[in-house]
Amino acid sequence: MTAEILCVGTELLLGNVVNTNAAFLGRELAAIGIFTYYQSVVGDNAARLKECLALSFSRSDIAIVTGGLGPTYDDLTKETVAGYFGLEMEMHEESLERLKKFFAQFGREMTPNNYKQAMMPKGCAVFQNNYGSAPGLAVSGNGKTAIMLPGPPREMEPMYREEAKPFLLKKQSGKALVSKTLNIFGMGESSVEHRLGEMMRSSANPTIAPYAKEGEVELRVTASGRNEGECLKLIEPAIEKIKSEIGEFVYGIDAKSLQSAVVSKLREKNLTLATAESCTGGLIGKRITEIAGSSKVYLGGIISYANSVKTSQLGVSERTLAQHGAVSEQTALAMCEGAAKNLGADIGISTTGIAGPDGGTKEKPVGLVWVGLYFDDKKNGTLTHRAMKLNLARHMYRDEREMIRYMASSNALCEILKLLG
Amino acid sequence: MTAEILCVGTELLLGNVVNTNAAFLGRELAAIGIFTYYQSVVGDNAARLKECLALSFSRSDIAIVTGGLGPTYDDLTKETVAGYFGLEMEMHEESLERLKKFFAQFGREMTPNNYKQAMMPKGCAVFQNNYGSAPGLAVSGNGKTAIMLPGPPREMEPMYREEAKPFLLKKQSGKALVSKTLNIFGMGESSVEHRLGEMMRSSANPTIAPYAKEGEVELRVTASGRNEGECLKLIEPAIEKIKSEIGEFVYGIDAKSLQSAVVSKLREKNLTLATAESCTGGLIGKRITEIAGSSKVYLGGIISYANSVKTSQLGVSERTLAQHGAVSEQTALAMCEGAAKNLGADIGISTTGIAGPDGGTKEKPVGLVWVGLYFDDKKNGTLTHRAMKLNLARHMYRDEREMIRYMASSNALCEILKLLG
Repeated sequence: MTAEILCVGTELLLGNVVNTNAAFLGRELAAIGIFTYYQSVVGDNAARLKECLALSFSRSDIAIVTGGLGPTYDDLTKETVAGYFGLEMEMHEESLERLKKFFAQFGREMTPNNYKQAMMPKGCAVFQNNYGSAPGLAVSGNGKTAIMLPGPPREMEPMYREEAKPFLLKKQSGKALVSKTLNIFGMGESSVEHRLGEMMRSSANPTIAPYAKEGEVELRVTASGRNEGECLKLIEPAIEKIKSEIGEFVYGIDAKSLQSAVVSKLREKNLTLATAESCTGGLIGKRITEIAGSSKVYLGGIISYANSVKTSQLGVSERTLAQHGAVSEQTALAMCEGAAKNLGADIGISTTGIAGPDGGTKEKPVGLVWVGLYFDDKKNGTLTHRAMKLNLARHMYRDEREMIRYMASSNALCEILKLLG
Repeated sequence: MTAEILCVGTELLLGNVVNTNAAFLGRELAAIGIFTYYQSVVGDNAARLKECLALSFSRSDIAIVTGGLGPTYDDLTKETVAGYFGLEMEMHEESLERLKKFFAQFGREMTPNNYKQAMMPKGCAVFQNNYGSAPGLAVSGNGKTAIMLPGPPREMEPMYREEAKPFLLKKQSGKALVSKTLNIFGMGESSVEHRLGEMMRSSANPTIAPYAKEGEVELRVTASGRNEGECLKLIEPAIEKIKSEIGEFVYGIDAKSLQSAVVSKLREKNLTLATAESCTGGLIGKRITEIAGSSKVYLGGIISYANSVKTSQLGVSERTLAQHGAVSEQTALAMCEGAAKNLGADIGISTTGIAGPDGGTKEKPVGLVWVGLYFDDKKNGTLTHRAMKLNLARHMYRDEREMIRYMASSNALCEILKLLG
């Protein structure tokens, strides 16, 4: 079964919106074994949309169409698809009721053009929208299927997962497909491929595929079977085998991010954290506090961008700064200790480095970052106090400064995970 | 003249990479008055690429093709396009020299397959790559033009700006096109349209178009003329007219971001800043320190996520916290004052609020944020000490927590800009 993705919206052609929908759907379709060979984008224009739809069905079994389901005059997707399949439009009462409720809930008036959102081609399958007003739908005929989803990702993504994906899986004759993702940090995509190469190539079920993502690698293990249990039985030994090869780089399974793994681990161990950031300038704190519930374990931090703040707020001595410089092992060690002690946290993590583009020297080039870690483990009576040197420059990016800062924050988060085992 | 965008790469079909190239090119082409009606994505497959190329030229004058210019066997773009135009490939000596230098510079070995990157269709225009190894190129014939650019955005974007854009402008018979962008904060896109509606609709040269972007609006004023001076003469009165309508919301012209405007303004006025962040958890510091050179004006900050840190590091009294709560005008005022005084900065800015999803009450719902501002202006002998209440909940987003935090940080940055005039 092949599908293609057809995204409708003049805002995509004008580049006002980046097409994350196509990437999301491409990833999701690949994960359930549906091949896509083409993606297209077309504006809010009925004639061109019709032409693209015909082209899609000349090449593929399924067209997944996003956008153009809203209430305004230039939302044309449903009507155009209905025309293609020769179907009349009719009022879908259940959708109309939901729409009325939706508007009442937000105290907004339901203007006449909103009724259009509940008009559906006869005999279609309707997908309810739990995050917005426009329902989605699917229409089939002559061995072809069009699946229509709303344009905004916050509506489209859950609707795909909750409604369109089960619809597609049913089309694939009740096969189950289950994925687990290993989260890897500290190893590049090509190294992962190199280390696991034979395993990745030789395994047909489960399949093992790596994805590079913001300095991390996600390794997705996907099994197909008659039901979830059968799939999991295939996945588990593969995960064990991967872990035996590169386990020291695997920081989670289906973890959302390094910071969510850090917050979970701290909560599990009932420990608190404080940060002391120089070159990352608040980025570690920002990433940790992204996680709802982080207030249970994260007390806060000091952004010590100026040396005076390193001294006054973190107790880094002026002698240390003068002798070793702000970017040094000694300063990193003093910073994390100061953060933990001054804020009363169990663990202190610090960063100090040269993010560039200026400020580098031969001895201390742009990209040099020290990450300090302090942990006074009162329960076990041990003290961890160490610093790690990183060289994060790659000389390949225009936004190297942000890349250095981001990778410094990721390495710091990973240090905490390593500490907590 | 019409163009379409054809992005080549199986990683795009699989959704491993989000197609930011299509958005970038869509925006850039619109800015120079070239219409695009279609975007397509196809994998690394010669037959399908050829078919897509033929389709593009059946609909448009220009195809802008990204990706598939690299050294490996599945990089097929140049060969396929040359085949379409009936051109032979030959070694382009200048590109070969540059390639050799590129590899020498990074101490990397130039493997035989890299020579392929210097092979070019006879008679093409070559675009040098200053950020990677694969050159770009343009081929014309029978009134059709293919422009080929590398896939990685960090190579593609500067090559477009430096080489492909001038090439396209020359095709448009020497017309000049100049844009200026007004940066607007605190007003939604639809309100901007509402306020400026008549002006936007009635003006054909310059054109005025709004773009919503992460809680801000960019209003692009684009003029065409015989040369840059003529364009600027058309743009300037339009900008004045816009400012007379909504000037209080315009924070910059061609500013890169709120944080870059803040850093410029602080440098210009020779003032220093400290932050005190609760709900934003370091995001303000992170955004400010994104800007190279921010260390000249940003001393640092306190991330006071826990109340104990608000007290110990910022001097918020326990009584204030007990009487008014952490999310209150009084706490916000004490936080910004504490940050400025303890870190020795001229200006202190603070945030305290409820980012959710939990922690909201009837009196203090999710989305309530206080932004505090402290400025002891010794030069003029005035003291500014005020707090602003925001309600940032929209109940429409799955990632509402991040949206509330981001908008809180934007509002705080905007407060500093308002202060500095």
